[in-house]
Amino acid sequence: MKINPPSTVQWIASFLGTGFSGNPEFMVTGINEIHRVERGDIVFTDHPKYYDKALSSKASVVLIDREMPCPDGKILIFSKDPFGDFNRLILRFTTRGSHEKMISSTAVIGEGTVIDPGVFIGNNVVIGKNCRLHSHISVYDCCVIGNNVIIHSNTVIGSDGFYYKKRAETGRHEKFISCGNVIIGDEVEIGACCTIDRGVTHNTVIGSGTKLDNLIQVGHDTVIGKNCLLAAQVGIAGMVTIEDEVTLWGQVGVISNVVIGKGAVVLAQSGVAKSLKGNAVYFGSPAVEAREKMREIVKLKNL
Amino acid sequence: MKINPPSTVQWIASFLGTGFSGNPEFMVTGINEIHRVERGDIVFTDHPKYYDKALSSKASVVLIDREMPCPDGKILIFSKDPFGDFNRLILRFTTRGSHEKMISSTAVIGEGTVIDPGVFIGNNVVIGKNCRLHSHISVYDCCVIGNNVIIHSNTVIGSDGFYYKKRAETGRHEKFISCGNVIIGDEVEIGACCTIDRGVTHNTVIGSGTKLDNLIQVGHDTVIGKNCLLAAQVGIAGMVTIEDEVTLWGQVGVISNVVIGKGAVVLAQSGVAKSLKGNAVYFGSPAVEAREKMREIVKLKNL
Amino acid sequence: MKINPPSTVQWIASFLGTGFSGNPEFMVTGINEIHRVERGDIVFTDHPKYYDKALSSKASVVLIDREMPCPDGKILIFSKDPFGDFNRLILRFTTRGSHEKMISSTAVIGEGTVIDPGVFIGNNVVIGKNCRLHSHISVYDCCVIGNNVIIHSNTVIGSDGFYYKKRAETGRHEKFISCGNVIIGDEVEIGACCTIDRGVTHNTVIGSGTKLDNLIQVGHDTVIGKNCLLAAQVGIAGMVTIEDEVTLWGQVGVISNVVIGKGAVVLAQSGVAKSLKGNAVYFGSPAVEAREKMREIVKLKNL
Repeated sequence: MKINPPSTVQWIASFLGTGFSGNPEFMVTGINEIHRVERGDIVFTDHPKYYDKALSSKASVVLIDREMPCPDGKILIFSKDPFGDFNRLILRFTTRGSHEKMISSTAVIGEGTVIDPGVFIGNNVVIGKNCRLHSHISVYDCCVIGNNVIIHSNTVIGSDGFYYKKRAETGRHEKFISCGNVIIGDEVEIGACCTIDRGVTHNTVIGSGTKLDNLIQVGHDTVIGKNCLLAAQVGIAGMVTIEDEVTLWGQVGVISNVVIGKGAVVLAQSGVAKSLKGNAVYFGSPAVEAREKMREIVKLKNL
Repeated sequence: MKINPPSTVQWIASFLGTGFSGNPEFMVTGINEIHRVERGDIVFTDHPKYYDKALSSKASVVLIDREMPCPDGKILIFSKDPFGDFNRLILRFTTRGSHEKMISSTAVIGEGTVIDPGVFIGNNVVIGKNCRLHSHISVYDCCVIGNNVIIHSNTVIGSDGFYYKKRAETGRHEKFISCGNVIIGDEVEIGACCTIDRGVTHNTVIGSGTKLDNLIQVGHDTVIGKNCLLAAQVGIAGMVTIEDEVTLWGQVGVISNVVIGKGAVVLAQSGVAKSLKGNAVYFGSPAVEAREKMREIVKLKNL
Repeated sequence: MKINPPSTVQWIASFLGTGFSGNPEFMVTGINEIHRVERGDIVFTDHPKYYDKALSSKASVVLIDREMPCPDGKILIFSKDPFGDFNRLILRFTTRGSHEKMISSTAVIGEGTVIDPGVFIGNNVVIGKNCRLHSHISVYDCCVIGNNVIIHSNTVIGSDGFYYKKRAETGRHEKFISCGNVIIGDEVEIGACCTIDRGVTHNTVIGSGTKLDNLIQVGHDTVIGKNCLLAAQVGIAGMVTIEDEVTLWGQVGVISNVVIGKGAVVLAQSGVAKSLKGNAVYFGSPAVEAREKMREIVKLKNL
């Protein structure tokens, strides 16, 4: 997420009570998790295994749990608990208002949009024109919905990502504060009882013209392209990229961090455990090309 | 759906701005999608592959995208865009009222029925006697619920079918306006967070005595018989027929357009990809007779 | 469940209109289904196959459909329909108040707990301190939620168990009246659109520190340990025991009555059909050790 106002490294280190190495006047403009960072961002790393990834990323500032020489063009902030300090920073820059009404007075709702009884719309939500939101939908703070969007009853937009750090000392899972958003394009339709999690620090995106059936899960920071079709009970984990015109049939599951190429079709109940090329048909758990899977099924039957 | 008032072919062609061939005074009484049509109905077809099916169906009037001689006993209405014109006709005969209250004043609710706080009941809904509707249920317009029915919280009855036409020119999916209904029999119990889609032009039916667990999807125009048991997270696509006394265990998926015979049992996580005979036990994805599947599992283990 | 007030065998037999054998003054303190009974409880059995289990259980009183000599230390109550009479007893001792407000005046809600608009909280619910309940949650009567618990929108806590007796004469499924409860520990997080059924006569339990993603089903009387992670769309049947620190990945299904040992990890889409030992990784439907399953997948590919 972008932070407002942008703040100096010195201010941030002082807020966290930590030392740092590098330009104290550098202006930090964003806070982002490692999978999507830009220049100006602060990122965190708390395991030697991931030091290189953080230090060679586009992030300008790295919140890190070991004092080390500062690489050229980077700034290091030294923290005993980078995860905890990162969460503290996010909370500092996130406005969490209370919700006294079903539709927040700070929400912006476009002309021609029809909102049925019992819809909850949080603070700073933006909804475009000519949408239809059916009863009992929940739209969490700051989510953005385009024009001509239909959302069916009891769907939840913007719930927190499922993202924890396990503390080895205690065995407890500590929550990463989700501060990303959900961005829904134009002409999207979302069925009933779907759950679209917000991004952890970036956005969960549903591209224009994409249609979701009922009871579908879309994880944090996942980006779905345009004109896709997702049948009922599909479950997509976090940080997935689904390109345009992909079809996922019923009950398909997709593991985190994979890419499904443009025009791919994944048959019902398949489990996508690695990235898939576009313009092909897949089946099975784990999913492989459908022809291959069908051959396996025949071979097994004939054993 | 039945249309009200029944209207002449001449009126319909004039409303659509199209030509036609056949008896101008013929009274059209219904609008239905090809999978369930009756005499008096208008149906549409927009691909030569399906011309025969439409022309040999029980429908009296066919909305078609090619001028051709009119077969005996039929009426043809010629349209450049049968799908779009069919949607226009549906919209013309569908009353879509607004929802200002959580319980519409046009809903009819039987004696002894208990409705918890936060339930949404749309226009012209009919609910029988001695039902219990738990909090946050949504019942869309015109759905019909029998007597002694229990529905748990956050379930959605009557959301739109997942049914689109892909426009080849643009790659966009155009929504088919669902105008069918949901009909729920007596002594049905439906768990929490289920989604029962309305029929596209006909009805989605849940037969008397059938029990659904939580998080179940029932697609448009699917007909479920009496005294069935569906365990949690079952997903049934559109236009499926499930006969009486069928048991589907947890997370079973059923593809569209199949029939599951009376008394069949489908074990958990199976995927039903073709019609299944009654009074047998099935397992696997795709589902086959459970004994056969068990043999395959043993053979594979012993390889 | 415990009954209040505790009642003599004589009073119960008279209420049911049945005969009995044993101490008429014995004080019955609870009504429980066979899978979790204690001394002082009344249990029922209606099939010779299960007589021994009921008669050798800890239950003090057995509601049974055949007159027989009373074993030492037991009391028998003779009933033509033990299931129906058991339900009548449960109803007699269950207070089912009405719900006129979204938040019952008999609910107890701890300091610092934030409840968003549109949340339904039933009678006698107890919620601890510093919890966050997002919009459109439903918490049924008598459920207990610990401290620092986060529950996301449209989740349902305490819906009835999916538990029926099939009446052979009519083919109808008769509902077992769920009178158990849901007990949620501290620092639990539950995602959006989850369904946590109440116990049938005992409790459904989610241990402290356990985190659930979205669209998860937890069946009646299931006990989940501490610090577990359950990914989206997991489905757990009734009467399952999941020990501490278990991880179930997306869309995993777990059959009823099994135990998953401490620290076990079950990979996505697996189906757990028997008990699994702790500290191992499982995959497949039915789930076996993941290494074994991976070998099978390779062998099948190489056929």
